[in-house]
Amino acid sequence: MESTLDFKLLEDIRQKKPLVHHLTNTVTINDCANITLCFGALPVMANSIDEVEEIVENADSLVLNMGTLSNEQYNAIILAGKKANQRKIPIILDPVGAGATTYRTRKIQDLLEILNPTVIKGNAAEISILSGQYGVLKGIESQGIYNNIIPTAEKLANSHNCIVAVTGQNDVVTNGQRTFIIENGHWLMGKIIGTGCMAASVIGCFMATGIQTLEACTCALTAYDISAELASIRADVKGPGSFKAALMDEAFNLQITTINRLAKIRKV
Amino acid sequence: MESTLDFKLLEDIRQKKPLVHHLTNTVTINDCANITLCFGALPVMANSIDEVEEIVENADSLVLNMGTLSNEQYNAIILAGKKANQRKIPIILDPVGAGATTYRTRKIQDLLEILNPTVIKGNAAEISILSGQYGVLKGIESQGIYNNIIPTAEKLANSHNCIVAVTGQNDVVTNGQRTFIIENGHWLMGKIIGTGCMAASVIGCFMATGIQTLEACTCALTAYDISAELASIRADVKGPGSFKAALMDEAFNLQITTINRLAKIRKV
Amino acid sequence: MESTLDFKLLEDIRQKKPLVHHLTNTVTINDCANITLCFGALPVMANSIDEVEEIVENADSLVLNMGTLSNEQYNAIILAGKKANQRKIPIILDPVGAGATTYRTRKIQDLLEILNPTVIKGNAAEISILSGQYGVLKGIESQGIYNNIIPTAEKLANSHNCIVAVTGQNDVVTNGQRTFIIENGHWLMGKIIGTGCMAASVIGCFMATGIQTLEACTCALTAYDISAELASIRADVKGPGSFKAALMDEAFNLQITTINRLAKIRKV
Repeated sequence: MESTLDFKLLEDIRQKKPLVHHLTNTVTINDCANITLCFGALPVMANSIDEVEEIVENADSLVLNMGTLSNEQYNAIILAGKKANQRKIPIILDPVGAGATTYRTRKIQDLLEILNPTVIKGNAAEISILSGQYGVLKGIESQGIYNNIIPTAEKLANSHNCIVAVTGQNDVVTNGQRTFIIENGHWLMGKIIGTGCMAASVIGCFMATGIQTLEACTCALTAYDISAELASIRADVKGPGSFKAALMDEAFNLQITTINRLAKIRKV
Repeated sequence: MESTLDFKLLEDIRQKKPLVHHLTNTVTINDCANITLCFGALPVMANSIDEVEEIVENADSLVLNMGTLSNEQYNAIILAGKKANQRKIPIILDPVGAGATTYRTRKIQDLLEILNPTVIKGNAAEISILSGQYGVLKGIESQGIYNNIIPTAEKLANSHNCIVAVTGQNDVVTNGQRTFIIENGHWLMGKIIGTGCMAASVIGCFMATGIQTLEACTCALTAYDISAELASIRADVKGPGSFKAALMDEAFNLQITTINRLAKIRKV
Repeated sequence: MESTLDFKLLEDIRQKKPLVHHLTNTVTINDCANITLCFGALPVMANSIDEVEEIVENADSLVLNMGTLSNEQYNAIILAGKKANQRKIPIILDPVGAGATTYRTRKIQDLLEILNPTVIKGNAAEISILSGQYGVLKGIESQGIYNNIIPTAEKLANSHNCIVAVTGQNDVVTNGQRTFIIENGHWLMGKIIGTGCMAASVIGCFMATGIQTLEACTCALTAYDISAELASIRADVKGPGSFKAALMDEAFNLQITTINRLAKIRKV
């Protein structure tokens, strides 16, 4: 494992219990709150335009998810995001379904004109589309093969001066200059709704410690993927339903020594 | 088992991974997305008036659920439904709480003036009320005994030229001419929220294969009921909470041979 | 155990299946509906301004939760609450995040000018803030030590002529004159989202039987805490994910004899 990656961040989350504010979709909002709590941070999910700024005033990171976007939600997202940028707390943007509809693509592009996310996390299709490449979504699922996802992600990272995380069978995490590939994870993650959304929450937890680096983002996804691996091998996991509960359990019980033993990360 | 019923449709879902768009309630939206994924289709749950038409443009079926209806949601439902009717993809209507309030009953009746659902799926009280009969709901639960639910369902099917599915201890599925009774299922289904909503999603999965028939609807509910039976007999199921996770597992693992062995369907 | 506390109320819920209407947040709405069903009542979660009054007309109790408050939701809450007060059915108010933002604090104070809740249930910080004392929230979590929470709760109960329930390691339940301390519960309750929200739903179940007393509220929280204890000792519970499913199971299976055996309640 890369020596530059220090999973002690997990201990920091559990010690500091940072506040991770979410403006997210109605489908996986409960899962995002629970995974945040399982990793040791405190979630808050309020989304009224009348209070999001004040919540961000006290938050340690902000997760913005476009899953069930509406104009009202978009306006609250912009207000919260501006405040987060002012306060220099990390914004993790999950551009769910970028490219799926004209409305959604335009709203995400508008957002990227106004806000400076610290991390953009998406699947290969979403990242390709935001990078100006060809990408295919079926609903919100990435379709097709993306052989050149690494340069695509690097390009997006450079054009927005941010970290880009591409989740999939392997995860790619890049700041445009340096790139990590994470070979952890489990195919059952694709069989429950919300594993992508939860990945953004976990990045939100790790970055809420104050460390807004490529390494922190890589640690977050690795720890999350390993939780999924540990869940998948449990004797009581018999399919997606029991896997989801086990994923929460394993995130909560995760030990740094276990991460160090199982992490499969390489630099490219 | 009826020889006209071919559960190979389940294999078709898993092969084609059709897109099942939902406009549904905020209570069970996560469950509906997960059961769709467990049966092998891809769920999409976006509900903004600004994008539902474009999503339906690419969807293979549309599930409309009135559980937490608002005027805004109703308008999005109508837009999505018109597009689905234009494209001749199946609409599965779940008129949750029809008869529970004046507002909801009127909105559902308005909808039925505008849209042509392929399937109306409800409990005995909802179906009776929509059929112009007497029905009693307590909240959204059917109360009372409905001895003549078969002719009631047939009447509704004929008056709207659609399939009607009545879920309960036994399920009734009819197109007004032919009627199947499904004697599968388990009482624990009534002890978790959302089994009715999920039933509509499963019909949405089966019909998204392109087969918009009475048989496809019957196959869907039978497969779903058998998943529940398999979940109920698992040693690790100790109540509604563990049952719900097991139901997802068993839907995901369901084999056609198992369905053929356990299906209890009769024609009336 | 106090002889004045009669857990036969649990049997009454299961017999009568009262209707517990919720106007609640989008994060834990599914959990609140499920725990209500597990305790034997029927949940209804509709929140449109166009139908809440008619639903309350037929409801046996009303749970009002401020978790993801908006102006629209607030207006529906006020309409529903006025009807509940007119009909003299119990209102259980969960002032989630009172003190967390100016908006939220003001809206909760406005509500308390208009509605007469039967129970205000919150964590120590929320109850302290509503009582005009100092309180600290991190997101929606109570922070700090509240040594004088009992007089604080009593003061709030007296000023609003209602029951106040403070959940935490021990629960405090008071009507301002008499006060019970419940020493049941388990720390895992703090590791999943929604245990506070579900506590309000359980009070809603117990009070929906028609018994709007300090004792009914105390019985509710005790039964709920004991369900959590039973869940926590199950061999298949390995963390927060499996605990949540087990909590539902144990609430559903809970026996009055078990409650009587395990209840640790004292009068102060």
